[in-house]
Amino acid sequence: MRSVEFTPIGIIHTPIKDRKDAPRQSRLGRDIAGIIEIDKQYERGLTDLETFSHVVLIFHLHLSKDFSLMSKPPVDDKYHGVFATRSPRRPNPIGISVVRLEKVEGNILHVLDVDMVDGTPILDIKPYIPEVNSGDPIRYGWLEGRVEDK
Amino acid sequence: MRSVEFTPIGIIHTPIKDRKDAPRQSRLGRDIAGIIEIDKQYERGLTDLETFSHVVLIFHLHLSKDFSLMSKPPVDDKYHGVFATRSPRRPNPIGISVVRLEKVEGNILHVLDVDMVDGTPILDIKPYIPEVNSGDPIRYGWLEGRVEDK
Repeated sequence: MRSVEFTPIGIIHTPIKDRKDAPRQSRLGRDIAGIIEIDKQYERGLTDLETFSHVVLIFHLHLSKDFSLMSKPPVDDKYHGVFATRSPRRPNPIGISVVRLEKVEGNILHVLDVDMVDGTPILDIKPYIPEVNSGDPIRYGWLEGRVEDK
Repeated sequence: MRSVEFTPIGIIHTPIKDRKDAPRQSRLGRDIAGIIEIDKQYERGLTDLETFSHVVLIFHLHLSKDFSLMSKPPVDDKYHGVFATRSPRRPNPIGISVVRLEKVEGNILHVLDVDMVDGTPILDIKPYIPEVNSGDPIRYGWLEGRVEDK
């Protein structure tokens, strides 16, 4: 299939300097603060973003250099298909996280609950809206019992 | 910033043949069925995925040829910064949706609640886990009062 090229719109600065210190999900990064620097040319696109309490970040897992179709997550002792995990070692190393938005100052976003390594390139930002019908029963597969609030 | 190249892992077939017929959010696409065909080489990566009831799809908004920093959503009469909307006309045309997973047969996924146009290239699939602390108050900005269950 034809490949697609994206250019990061910005970068996130976080206190997480090493991959091994990154929380395994943003839910585990409770209260960790990050600063997102958006390229000046896109600043206008942030208009009204600060009226949302949470935003979705889509980012490039830039330290991930290869992938593995089976993955053993740190919270389990069994291998699972990579698409059934959040492993960074995926065919397309794209990460998503929901973070709390504290404030927007020009092209700078102050966020909380980050789980990315310092210097992670940001590909897109979207307003957070719940995506699952509040009445739908949810099954968490092998993660059942491991999904907790941050 | 340095650009990144991704190659789709598969394609989704849906009954939505025209962009203008696409629901504006997956929440509005309740019960619309789709079939995802994953490249055979990645089939093993789907192992255990069917134990989850919902999955996150990350896809290329391939019909979007340009972007606009300000966007007037169909549900509003005011312009908002593109990053405060789900408009497909974004600097990096990446879409995300949570869909219900009905079943997995080899490299084929049967899903419900789709909102993508037929033929949309899929970049990644992740298990769905709620990303917001159940105790956190959520503000939906200009979308307040417009966020409804599907």
